[in-house]
Amino acid sequence: MVGGIATLAEVSVTRDRRSTNGTTIGEAMLDPAIAARLKRDDKGLVAAIAQQYDTGEVLMLGWMDDEALHRTLTTGRCTYWSRSRQEYWVKGDTSGHYQWVKSVALDCDGDALVVKVDQVGAACHTGDRTCFDADVLEAVSGQPAAS
Amino acid sequence: MVGGIATLAEVSVTRDRRSTNGTTIGEAMLDPAIAARLKRDDKGLVAAIAQQYDTGEVLMLGWMDDEALHRTLTTGRCTYWSRSRQEYWVKGDTSGHYQWVKSVALDCDGDALVVKVDQVGAACHTGDRTCFDADVLEAVSGQPAAS
Repeated sequence: MVGGIATLAEVSVTRDRRSTNGTTIGEAMLDPAIAARLKRDDKGLVAAIAQQYDTGEVLMLGWMDDEALHRTLTTGRCTYWSRSRQEYWVKGDTSGHYQWVKSVALDCDGDALVVKVDQVGAACHTGDRTCFDADVLEAVSGQPAAS
Repeated sequence: MVGGIATLAEVSVTRDRRSTNGTTIGEAMLDPAIAARLKRDDKGLVAAIAQQYDTGEVLMLGWMDDEALHRTLTTGRCTYWSRSRQEYWVKGDTSGHYQWVKSVALDCDGDALVVKVDQVGAACHTGDRTCFDADVLEAVSGQPAAS
């Protein structure tokens, strides 16, 4: 029963597991060579900065565990781990505002990613293009002392 | 003794305090109206994305508590909280690779900042221009289905 075997195999690689803090997270399929370079926080997450690939706009900051990063690397669409809802979310599944992946880079100490994307419509749930559009803080501008 | 009073006042506003987890952090001088909008993690920190103001390069991801954000907003140079060394660090004080602040924006849910800066030299301690230059991950490129 070749079909049956394939189905069993598929089930076995997509099953959920329990993390140490009791939340259900996906069985990580992430390349072990990448997984070994991640420095996760105490919830198993790394920060993921989504950046519009051509304009350079920083769109939003999300969070990824190993499985979310695996899905992002392999499906062409950003998948995050929602800390508030404790579930995976594919950006755009509800809003249509997909993030099509262009490239993914890990930082020097393994705790942050830059995901360059092509953002459809608004990245922010408020309808703004980016999550950083609405609240610009008053700041002193710095500059080198004149020499 | 006017000088004496001024000195006492200065001491009183720059004293250290103990946070709930026992680490020593600065007495936060941050504008209460901004502090009220921050959604800090369980260590009292928000993520701070440093971005080169003109090219749009994402340079690095650091962490700020209230005091680090206050210093960043008021001194014109980025100050972070080092999670590994448990101390404030002014970017460039050791390396000369200052980050001169151009603007600071808080995101829609208050847990991330974009700090646009003029980066002197390398942002990364490895000597790379950004912390995301060295480890580009293999990723499937996504695109909308042809309609």
